[in-house]
Amino acid sequence: MNDFWEWWAERGRANRFVVTQVPFGELGEWSFHPETGNLGHASGRFFTVEGLQVRDAGVPVWSQPIINQPEIGILGIVVKEFDGVLHCLMQAKMEPGNVNTLQLSPTVQATRSNYTQVHKGATTRYLEHFTGPRRGQVVVDVLQSEQGAWFWRKRNRNMVVLVTDDIPVHEDFRWVSLSALRALMKVDNLVNMDARTVLSCMPFELPEEDDGALARSYQYQQRSLHTSGEILSWFTEAKTRCDWTATLIPLSRVDRWTRDDHEIADDEGRHFRIIGVHVEAGTREVKRWRQPLLAPRGQGQAWFVARPIEGVLHFLVRARPEFGLMDLVEMAPTIHLLPGEDLADVREPFLKELATSGSGRVRYDAVLSEEGGRFHHAMTRYRIVEVDGSFPAEVPEDFCWMTVRQLTDLLRHGHYLNIETRSLLACIQSML
Amino acid sequence: MNDFWEWWAERGRANRFVVTQVPFGELGEWSFHPETGNLGHASGRFFTVEGLQVRDAGVPVWSQPIINQPEIGILGIVVKEFDGVLHCLMQAKMEPGNVNTLQLSPTVQATRSNYTQVHKGATTRYLEHFTGPRRGQVVVDVLQSEQGAWFWRKRNRNMVVLVTDDIPVHEDFRWVSLSALRALMKVDNLVNMDARTVLSCMPFELPEEDDGALARSYQYQQRSLHTSGEILSWFTEAKTRCDWTATLIPLSRVDRWTRDDHEIADDEGRHFRIIGVHVEAGTREVKRWRQPLLAPRGQGQAWFVARPIEGVLHFLVRARPEFGLMDLVEMAPTIHLLPGEDLADVREPFLKELATSGSGRVRYDAVLSEEGGRFHHAMTRYRIVEVDGSFPAEVPEDFCWMTVRQLTDLLRHGHYLNIETRSLLACIQSML
Repeated sequence: MNDFWEWWAERGRANRFVVTQVPFGELGEWSFHPETGNLGHASGRFFTVEGLQVRDAGVPVWSQPIINQPEIGILGIVVKEFDGVLHCLMQAKMEPGNVNTLQLSPTVQATRSNYTQVHKGATTRYLEHFTGPRRGQVVVDVLQSEQGAWFWRKRNRNMVVLVTDDIPVHEDFRWVSLSALRALMKVDNLVNMDARTVLSCMPFELPEEDDGALARSYQYQQRSLHTSGEILSWFTEAKTRCDWTATLIPLSRVDRWTRDDHEIADDEGRHFRIIGVHVEAGTREVKRWRQPLLAPRGQGQAWFVARPIEGVLHFLVRARPEFGLMDLVEMAPTIHLLPGEDLADVREPFLKELATSGSGRVRYDAVLSEEGGRFHHAMTRYRIVEVDGSFPAEVPEDFCWMTVRQLTDLLRHGHYLNIETRSLLACIQSML
Repeated sequence: MNDFWEWWAERGRANRFVVTQVPFGELGEWSFHPETGNLGHASGRFFTVEGLQVRDAGVPVWSQPIINQPEIGILGIVVKEFDGVLHCLMQAKMEPGNVNTLQLSPTVQATRSNYTQVHKGATTRYLEHFTGPRRGQVVVDVLQSEQGAWFWRKRNRNMVVLVTDDIPVHEDFRWVSLSALRALMKVDNLVNMDARTVLSCMPFELPEEDDGALARSYQYQQRSLHTSGEILSWFTEAKTRCDWTATLIPLSRVDRWTRDDHEIADDEGRHFRIIGVHVEAGTREVKRWRQPLLAPRGQGQAWFVARPIEGVLHFLVRARPEFGLMDLVEMAPTIHLLPGEDLADVREPFLKELATSGSGRVRYDAVLSEEGGRFHHAMTRYRIVEVDGSFPAEVPEDFCWMTVRQLTDLLRHGHYLNIETRSLLACIQSML
């Protein structure tokens, strides 16, 4: 690990990166559409900031700005065995919204605009392993959603490709073993969101040291509280119950959000702001650019409550609608609070004490960053709290207990586990 | 089977049903919105006819009217064992668009407006087995899409519930064994679309008489051309390739479709018409009503090409975008032509001869109806044609060979197999 940290420190020194907030008037090719008020790029590509209108049973209940990025990008990790040990080719990558500039990222993290080179920059390194006739064996290849609170129907293609050939390793890249990644996952703001979602989709290895209940949660054929058929039926029922509809509207028609020269902000000052930044970078494909970012106010919370049930560790998942998700409802952490919401706001009586008193055994606790390419200093506190038999196994209808294996099986398909749940699933491997 | 046909004939005689086309001006509570031109019901429920705008890489390429019915309805079959043989509780049900009035339908076929009784009619029979605390074991419970060419993101909840208690059987209902259903599936316009989609999701029994290649196609662990991982990756790739976007627009802004007092029709006279009908029925929940219907011009075609590969029968599936599907791309039959398209229009060179010359061994061939509650006389010719080793196993990138087992496994999840493919999957059980 010392090697890793030396490389990491060296990368930090080598990479110059200056991010400055600028008024919208200085965003260059980014401008507000005269009719809709939508914020977009002159090329018509990258992404736009538009408006979202949410209705509950047909009645308008909420509107907000939202990032619309219809293109499907690639988040890919190249993996390879060295002396029988699986290693991931990870990247030290800067993103303008990162609180600490550099984070540990997948081998490839590219929007379609990126890799088709709309911005006329350098080619994306290692992309050839993920497109066209592939050099390697595809282990994971699935479209997964991202933040439903901030993105309109955004999906990325999560891929893992196993190679056997030698690959030249560029100085911003490094082979990291899965056990090293497990340790690094405990460090605040190090493993970025894109790396976490790809890692979560990777077929899990069993953790080596464990008390038994977690190991059993990874295995097939173990006693789980529910069958997979029951879980799918529970999820179908939850989708059917949801009576919300969400549609894009012109940004200028979003109520109770105000735009001035520097930001678009909610009048309550509670949710997030849209700002513009100027970026100067030493090692990105392009040296200098400007772009909007979504800046949340404060820090989110995403908690998994875990409980052994008949000797098998189960995780409590919630079927929860989010405005921007394609089918609205996905499976969310037990507790998920957006920045601006407070643990005191947890309404479910059976979770209230846990959320506020700090009871339970904390088995994972770290602050991790969300997508630094679109969000400014967006951080979430991820926590896994184990409770005992005094916590109810019977839960309200939008909650369901699942094993790690059941969660992992669902990840072969898109639109089941939302991005925060996938992050937590990657954290499970680093549990104490 | 004689019993069945006697009951069927008797139901036909008992049920009076008169459907008359009426001008839009006589559609009662249905009217065109003064601004958007959308056709909707005064209650705001049921469905609307709106406009659809399709863009390819951002460029408008097509617009048409489309049925928007955001509610999720229930299509449910109650099943029960009698003397060790599984029977389905089927319904003789009239729909205004049916070419022959009465078709064999699931136990429950209810929109949300239906079963929450917006139209103040009678309660939906047997609905209690599918909602709330259920009387029975849920075998199937999945949201599946319907016609992407005519519906905007329509899904229904496909359910199968196994009961053990005695159930009173109303005169419009009858227990039908799976082997009887298999025979009935060969009859033109008898088993309706809603019954077919639910039957397709039912875990298959192995057909009793078979040459071996089909039986092997039903089994796990048999040699299939592709692994399930390869199939999922192929499908992800196909979704990523699709550069279409589709949005709802006001019906009045649909180009090259014209509305007069009696119909909305495409100026080419090729695709479909929106018409209004008046219905008088003896046994429906409501005795008299008016509604719009979508009337296709002519008959569609949906073909599965099947080929034994290393002794296992494989079916050739195509990843194909359809405008109205939630994620655009689903898995479609080898050949799918909408009414108005011709077999001579089949463009893929490797399918052209098959489509026009009638080569191959026809193992299933029947004309079946699409949803009679929304479509007027919509019929599709479903065909399964078996080819031999002279037909290429190597196919273009949007096609993929799959076994019955692989297709069935995907049906546990929504948005993989489109409605025509599910119909064909139900027909496989009736193959010669």
